[in-house]
Amino acid sequence: MARKIGVIGMGNVGATAAHYIVANGFADELVLIDKRSEKVNADALDFEDAMANLKSHTKIIVNDYAALKDADVIISAIGKIELQDNQDDDRFAELPFTRAAAKEVGAKIKAAGFNGIMVVITNPVDVITSIYQEVIGLPKKHVLGTGTLLDSARMKRAVARELKIDPQSVYGYNLGEHGNSQFTAWSTVRVLGHPITEIAAKTGLDLAKLDQEAREGGFKVFHGKKYTNYGIATAAVRLALAVLTDSRAELAVSNYRKEWETYLSYPAIVGRDGIVEQLDFDLTDEEIKKLARSADYIKTKFAESR
Amino acid sequence: MARKIGVIGMGNVGATAAHYIVANGFADELVLIDKRSEKVNADALDFEDAMANLKSHTKIIVNDYAALKDADVIISAIGKIELQDNQDDDRFAELPFTRAAAKEVGAKIKAAGFNGIMVVITNPVDVITSIYQEVIGLPKKHVLGTGTLLDSARMKRAVARELKIDPQSVYGYNLGEHGNSQFTAWSTVRVLGHPITEIAAKTGLDLAKLDQEAREGGFKVFHGKKYTNYGIATAAVRLALAVLTDSRAELAVSNYRKEWETYLSYPAIVGRDGIVEQLDFDLTDEEIKKLARSADYIKTKFAESR
Amino acid sequence: MARKIGVIGMGNVGATAAHYIVANGFADELVLIDKRSEKVNADALDFEDAMANLKSHTKIIVNDYAALKDADVIISAIGKIELQDNQDDDRFAELPFTRAAAKEVGAKIKAAGFNGIMVVITNPVDVITSIYQEVIGLPKKHVLGTGTLLDSARMKRAVARELKIDPQSVYGYNLGEHGNSQFTAWSTVRVLGHPITEIAAKTGLDLAKLDQEAREGGFKVFHGKKYTNYGIATAAVRLALAVLTDSRAELAVSNYRKEWETYLSYPAIVGRDGIVEQLDFDLTDEEIKKLARSADYIKTKFAESR
Amino acid sequence: MARKIGVIGMGNVGATAAHYIVANGFADELVLIDKRSEKVNADALDFEDAMANLKSHTKIIVNDYAALKDADVIISAIGKIELQDNQDDDRFAELPFTRAAAKEVGAKIKAAGFNGIMVVITNPVDVITSIYQEVIGLPKKHVLGTGTLLDSARMKRAVARELKIDPQSVYGYNLGEHGNSQFTAWSTVRVLGHPITEIAAKTGLDLAKLDQEAREGGFKVFHGKKYTNYGIATAAVRLALAVLTDSRAELAVSNYRKEWETYLSYPAIVGRDGIVEQLDFDLTDEEIKKLARSADYIKTKFAESR
Repeated sequence: MARKIGVIGMGNVGATAAHYIVANGFADELVLIDKRSEKVNADALDFEDAMANLKSHTKIIVNDYAALKDADVIISAIGKIELQDNQDDDRFAELPFTRAAAKEVGAKIKAAGFNGIMVVITNPVDVITSIYQEVIGLPKKHVLGTGTLLDSARMKRAVARELKIDPQSVYGYNLGEHGNSQFTAWSTVRVLGHPITEIAAKTGLDLAKLDQEAREGGFKVFHGKKYTNYGIATAAVRLALAVLTDSRAELAVSNYRKEWETYLSYPAIVGRDGIVEQLDFDLTDEEIKKLARSADYIKTKFAESR
Repeated sequence: MARKIGVIGMGNVGATAAHYIVANGFADELVLIDKRSEKVNADALDFEDAMANLKSHTKIIVNDYAALKDADVIISAIGKIELQDNQDDDRFAELPFTRAAAKEVGAKIKAAGFNGIMVVITNPVDVITSIYQEVIGLPKKHVLGTGTLLDSARMKRAVARELKIDPQSVYGYNLGEHGNSQFTAWSTVRVLGHPITEIAAKTGLDLAKLDQEAREGGFKVFHGKKYTNYGIATAAVRLALAVLTDSRAELAVSNYRKEWETYLSYPAIVGRDGIVEQLDFDLTDEEIKKLARSADYIKTKFAESR
Repeated sequence: MARKIGVIGMGNVGATAAHYIVANGFADELVLIDKRSEKVNADALDFEDAMANLKSHTKIIVNDYAALKDADVIISAIGKIELQDNQDDDRFAELPFTRAAAKEVGAKIKAAGFNGIMVVITNPVDVITSIYQEVIGLPKKHVLGTGTLLDSARMKRAVARELKIDPQSVYGYNLGEHGNSQFTAWSTVRVLGHPITEIAAKTGLDLAKLDQEAREGGFKVFHGKKYTNYGIATAAVRLALAVLTDSRAELAVSNYRKEWETYLSYPAIVGRDGIVEQLDFDLTDEEIKKLARSADYIKTKFAESR
Repeated sequence: MARKIGVIGMGNVGATAAHYIVANGFADELVLIDKRSEKVNADALDFEDAMANLKSHTKIIVNDYAALKDADVIISAIGKIELQDNQDDDRFAELPFTRAAAKEVGAKIKAAGFNGIMVVITNPVDVITSIYQEVIGLPKKHVLGTGTLLDSARMKRAVARELKIDPQSVYGYNLGEHGNSQFTAWSTVRVLGHPITEIAAKTGLDLAKLDQEAREGGFKVFHGKKYTNYGIATAAVRLALAVLTDSRAELAVSNYRKEWETYLSYPAIVGRDGIVEQLDFDLTDEEIKKLARSADYIKTKFAESR
């Protein structure tokens, strides 16, 4: 019946995700939404200008919420990244803007009768994912956030560079808030056939430094160009594809965990039905404490933001 | 021996071209160059943050001209698009900046011993392509500009939308300067099995309007978002791929035409050896006049800019 | 709602088409059907053995007609190519087998409630396409054959090799029966910016030889390996993608033409609604005669085969 | 400098690998070699017949050993699969044929001055990889066999189906001979965030059955269609891409292990320089015994075959 994806927000992240989808023919129909009518129409035209030199074809629909009714996936990429500038690198700086935007957009998505899977990039992502779920009223497993999928990729990049291997050959996760309380759960990370903690013990690999590099990776990119887009857009589209193809991939995403009473990032199996299975790792006591702290932080912020 | 591409300039266009290359695994090594060290390093890191969630792997090298020595293709995406703002939509507004930049960059490319194919996006593209050829001293057929490859795509998009067909099923070209003196050579355009002029005669299709839409398409995008990137980056990468794979594709590119004594856009066969064959269409007298005017304009501007 | 494609017949052609779809992630669900249960299950397992080393994920369903109900496209690749051996290179050698098979399969497809687009490869393709349309009872525009899409590709390959250009830069068509009465409509062929007849007149390019090469290309491949698969599977999947993405591409396909009262290959615009527009070229008188002869041949054979 | 791949042997496996490469534009030049001149020319023509309907372009060169001189990777897909029929499912049934063929082909590759990476599919793969290394005289790390990369994929498929997850989300390896003495090293297999042995202990997952399924998977496919091609061709091309892009991926491949004095499959890091790092897992005592037995078997067979 054709693949249909919606992207809300044509900022740096949303436009990059849309371009990645168009350039690879990942969707048959792509619905682009942004209040800045001139911007979203310019991007749509720019995508269409690419099409004669592309190999695939994508139908592009602009600012039509009704067209989202039968979308398979909607990616929320709303943001106001400039709010983060001079804010001590805190993704909550965007909350006042994005909270209001998510409520407004969520209501329109609900009104459109959307019944697919919601993939949320908008920061602070764990809180905003919760808000979308409440406002749209979809089952919790049908609303998920990119969360630490990106932070895990950053950790893999840092580890891979240090060990001179393919980032795709690093297994493991960053957990918790996609924000400052997140952490690399080193007990989950394996590389070169061993727990990375073993390798670190033998070789003196500095895990604390790598942890910092993963957590601060986003801000390093941010300070260099005042936004980040390629890593996060790639993560979001990977999530969307896992849903579209029902691949049932194991991915770190922000999903609602009952025992923590909140959305937070923890690996899950992702498929057509959203979160189709939640996993449980054998974390260390220290990691469990960190996760608890991260969960508390998100819950508090969510409570404040309602 | 691996595919190696260089991209000079990490503005909106260069970064989009680099992302398109990384996301599709089009190159094995990608050399990114920009004076704004923070920006280019931020983009490189952002691309590497994408890699764990991508399907291919690309080695990224930053700000190392020496690494361009054995590149297959270098894409020049230098620009200062803000110079175009409030300048009556004239790509020559960028010339003072880009002329100096091309001379400086060209000298460094020459010093690196680069011996591949140069693909120039930098505006005003016909003049800047000439400058690069002079400065680097490559054979004329090894330096080419994206020229009206993009404008032709815009014309195809406009025609396709009007006739409700795939832009890839529109054949034909915009010729001359990638600038205000360009024009759609309607005598070359065929669609639905007929010259478009025949179809226009029968159906009242307004070619003048479509011509304007193609020429002004870029400025419509520009006014909507203050830059254009997706269409042009796609065109540049298509050119690069025609070179890398030696596909010998027929494409409208800015190439040096002896009879006009200048670089200007006219269809040619593009392959590993750059411009491997120049074509000659049966243009109408009016089109020839327009092309002559366009050639004169470029020559004058080039003479002024030396 | 996910892309769903069915492939009937896991011979050389069907299996290659299925592999091409799986290897590129073109479909989310792929239904494979073959009476030889061991063969189709072996292929399905083989595709699944590829998946851990692929970049995409495809759900594979075997021998379940009911699963075709909501397929977007069904590709019929049934055949018994060995019947063609020692038969003077005539695709009608397969008819006794494929006619019966198409009737049986068509009835099952109808029973499944299929309501998408049928893409027929099975030879003799023009006759078998007609049979499918009758048996399944779909609108004529929803049943189409690969027809001379492949022969046109062969003509392009022959022309491209002779002129040392990209086959994708050759425009034009073979028309009529996908069989011995087909012909290259040279009046439609354009290359290097000119009608190929002009180029032939100037350069002595031997069109008759190229025509023969296109028509006999299939048999050259056939005699070399006793079947042909890569060219035809690629053509069929291209058609399927034009439908899935509603690209509205101009393609030579076997479609029902009222004026000839039969299915035969003639360029049309292909999209989600199947044949969305039929084209009319200005053929030469000789070409019209050839087309009439080809149409008569198909009609006679179809009448005999009912 | 363009990607150049050679494929020796246009049987079911070699032709499928070549098609996968052509259909995805993975190489710029593809050299196809087979003694059966009619077959390899038929396949080459068939690939070229696909090109007008493809999105990429590949130059195809037939039966020219000299063209392999500057190839990046050569894939040996020589085989005589019919020798395996009625031979109690033993890949050594092919040895008398493939040993002679590898010696002959290896000498010609050496004579061509090839200096890239050799990827061997030809069975019995561990022995034939050794022969190629000896005959061509390349460094041991530049000659590698697909080995249990395919068996590992089969194990992942079996595990994934049982647990209803993406095969790409199963981590772990089959080790040893790509033959009957191989085994799944369950101590290396992790899934859903846990060692699979833990999951099996809790859920009663039958690992012995899954092990058998992986080992016998090939024969199941083989008995269903008298050859296997899609899984193995995908594995070989994945290896070739790891080399071309220097991705440094962790893959189970047949590589020379000093401590076992033979080629056998054990995970390694694969990049432009072939085997760039050899790994060491903490296998169980039983696994080490199995590996020793497998190594002995290969060594004996290799000694006999010299």
